[in-house]
Amino acid sequence: GDTEASTSALTRQATLTKPPGSLGRLEELAVWLARWQGRSIPRLDRVEIVIFAGNHGVAAQGVSPYPPAVTAQMVGNFAAGGAAINQLARIAGAGLRVVPVAGLDPTADITLAPAMTGAAFLSAVSIGFSAIEPGIDLLCLGEMGIGNTTAAAALAAGLFGGDGAAWAGRGTGLDDAGLARKARAIDAALALHAAAQDDPIAVARCLGGYELAAIFGAVLAARLHRIPVLLDGFVCTAAAAPLARLNAGGLDHALVSHRSAEAGHGALAAALGKTPLLDLGMRLGEASGAALAVPILRAACACHAGMASFAEAGVSTAS
Amino acid sequence: GDTEASTSALTRQATLTKPPGSLGRLEELAVWLARWQGRSIPRLDRVEIVIFAGNHGVAAQGVSPYPPAVTAQMVGNFAAGGAAINQLARIAGAGLRVVPVAGLDPTADITLAPAMTGAAFLSAVSIGFSAIEPGIDLLCLGEMGIGNTTAAAALAAGLFGGDGAAWAGRGTGLDDAGLARKARAIDAALALHAAAQDDPIAVARCLGGYELAAIFGAVLAARLHRIPVLLDGFVCTAAAAPLARLNAGGLDHALVSHRSAEAGHGALAAALGKTPLLDLGMRLGEASGAALAVPILRAACACHAGMASFAEAGVSTAS
Repeated sequence: GDTEASTSALTRQATLTKPPGSLGRLEELAVWLARWQGRSIPRLDRVEIVIFAGNHGVAAQGVSPYPPAVTAQMVGNFAAGGAAINQLARIAGAGLRVVPVAGLDPTADITLAPAMTGAAFLSAVSIGFSAIEPGIDLLCLGEMGIGNTTAAAALAAGLFGGDGAAWAGRGTGLDDAGLARKARAIDAALALHAAAQDDPIAVARCLGGYELAAIFGAVLAARLHRIPVLLDGFVCTAAAAPLARLNAGGLDHALVSHRSAEAGHGALAAALGKTPLLDLGMRLGEASGAALAVPILRAACACHAGMASFAEAGVSTAS
Repeated sequence: GDTEASTSALTRQATLTKPPGSLGRLEELAVWLARWQGRSIPRLDRVEIVIFAGNHGVAAQGVSPYPPAVTAQMVGNFAAGGAAINQLARIAGAGLRVVPVAGLDPTADITLAPAMTGAAFLSAVSIGFSAIEPGIDLLCLGEMGIGNTTAAAALAAGLFGGDGAAWAGRGTGLDDAGLARKARAIDAALALHAAAQDDPIAVARCLGGYELAAIFGAVLAARLHRIPVLLDGFVCTAAAAPLARLNAGGLDHALVSHRSAEAGHGALAAALGKTPLLDLGMRLGEASGAALAVPILRAACACHAGMASFAEAGVSTAS
C-alpha cells in the first residue's frame, strides 16, 4: 500500500468540519482506499463486480436442496438481468461481469479425490487473474455454484482447523438432516486430504473449487494492480483466505463487505482479522453483499473529497 | 399501515430467484416500505432529508467542547454545501432541507427550568409537522444543536428511567471531566422535572429542545401522510421516542438507520424494539446515518421490483 497517500488522507480528515472520529468507519474507509489506490483523494469512477461460477462434484453427496443445473440457470438469469445482483449492481453504479469457469463442468467430489488436478487449479486461478484489468477503482467479487458452501467450509477447516460441524451452514436452505450430511461430507474430505493441510495452495486445490480458485487469482491480480477489493460472503472470503495464510498482510487490500448469515462466516472473518461493514442477515452470494457496500464506500469518498475544512467554513473548533 | 400492500409484497418475495430469506433484511425492508407507502411495489423516487437545528440553554453547564455559536455556523456550512450531510445527500439521491427552529435562540437551561413553555413547545412541534409535505416516498430526519446530546439523554432517562451516568455519552468529544459534568447536569434536570415523568409530552417539553420537538412533529406528520421514516442517531431517536411511549405502535413507520457510537443509542434503540440497519461507529448527527442507509433501502426496492421469478427465469426450485 501507498503509505504517503494514506498519511495525507489521514491529515486531511482531521481538518474537515466534524468532530474528530465522528464519521467512524467512513474515515477509515477513505484512508484505506487512499492507501490501496495510491491517491490521497480516492475515487470510485470505475467500480466492477465480477462473479465467477463453477460446479462441484460434492453436490452428489446431497449437500444442497437445489440441483447442480441451477448454476447454469442462474448464469442465464444474470445475463438476462433477472437476478438480485443485476438490481444491486445498478444501485451501486457498478459494471457486472459473469465468468463461468471450466465450462461449468463439476470438480471431482472432494470426499473421493482432490477437487482439481494441479493443472486445472492453475488454469482456474489464471482465469481469475486475467479477468481483472488494471485501472478500475474498486473490485467487488462474488460467486455462484451449487454445492460451493460445502467446498468453502472444507477449505476454511483445512486452513484454520475445526471439523465439518464447526464450519457447515445451511447454505441455500438445508434442513437438519441435510446439514448433518454436509458436515459428514466435509469431515470425509478433510480426512482424505489431511496431507494437504500444511500448504494453503494444496488446501485450495484439494478442497476448493473452480470459481473459488478464480477468486483467489482475482484477489491476487487486484493486489498487483493496486485495486482495493470488496469480498462478498462465506464462499468468497474462504476463496481469498489462502492468501492471508501465505502472507500475513496478503488480504490487507481486501475488506469483508457483509457478514453472511451462513454459519461459518463470522468465525472466518474473525480468523482473518476483518470486521464486515454490513450485517443485514443476507446469505445469497453472487456478490450481493459486496455490491450493497459500494454506496458506503462512495459516501466515504464523497465526504473525504467534498467536505469543507473548519477554516474554509468559518466553523469554531473544539476547546 | 396497509396490510394488503405488505401481504402482497411478501407473496411476491417468495417467487423471486433466490433461496427464501436469503436477502435477509432487504426482504423485510421491501415489505415494510410497501406497508407504509401503501404500495405492493414500493418506490423511492422522492427521498427528503430534513435537518432541524436548535440551541440549548444547558450548554452553559459545560456539556460540550464546542461553543453554541457552532450551531449557526454549521447551518451556514449546510447552506454552503460543505458539511458531511451535503455529500451524503448527493450519494443518497435525496433532497436536503435545513430548518432552524426558534431563530436558534436557546431553550431554558433544563437544570434550572423547563426547556420550553407549553406554547413554545407546541410551536416547535408545529414547525416540524408543517415542514413535511405529503407525497414524498421516504423521510430522513436529523438534527444539529450544540448541547443536544445532553437534552436527548435527559429525555431518554425521563421516558425510560435510569440516571445521567446511564445515558450520558461523550457527544462531540467530551473528556472524562466533561462527561461527569454532563451526567450531573442530567441528574439535576431529572430531579427538577421529576413531576413530568408520567407524561411523555411533558418530558419532551421540560427536558428536550426545539429541534427535538420539531422532529417529534415531523415523525407524527409522516405517519399521517403515509411516509416511512429513517431516524438518525441518538438525538433523533430520543426526539421521536415519546411517540412510542404514547402509543405502542407509534413508531412502527420509523426505522433506526444507524447505531450511533454515542453511548446511549444502543440501549435506546433496544428500548424501542428497533435494530439499527447500520453500525459503522458514526456519531455525527445531521442525518448522516439516515442518509447512509438510503442506498440500502434503494437496493431493497430494486430487488423487489426488478428480480425475475423462478418461473420467468426458468430456474429450478428447491427439492
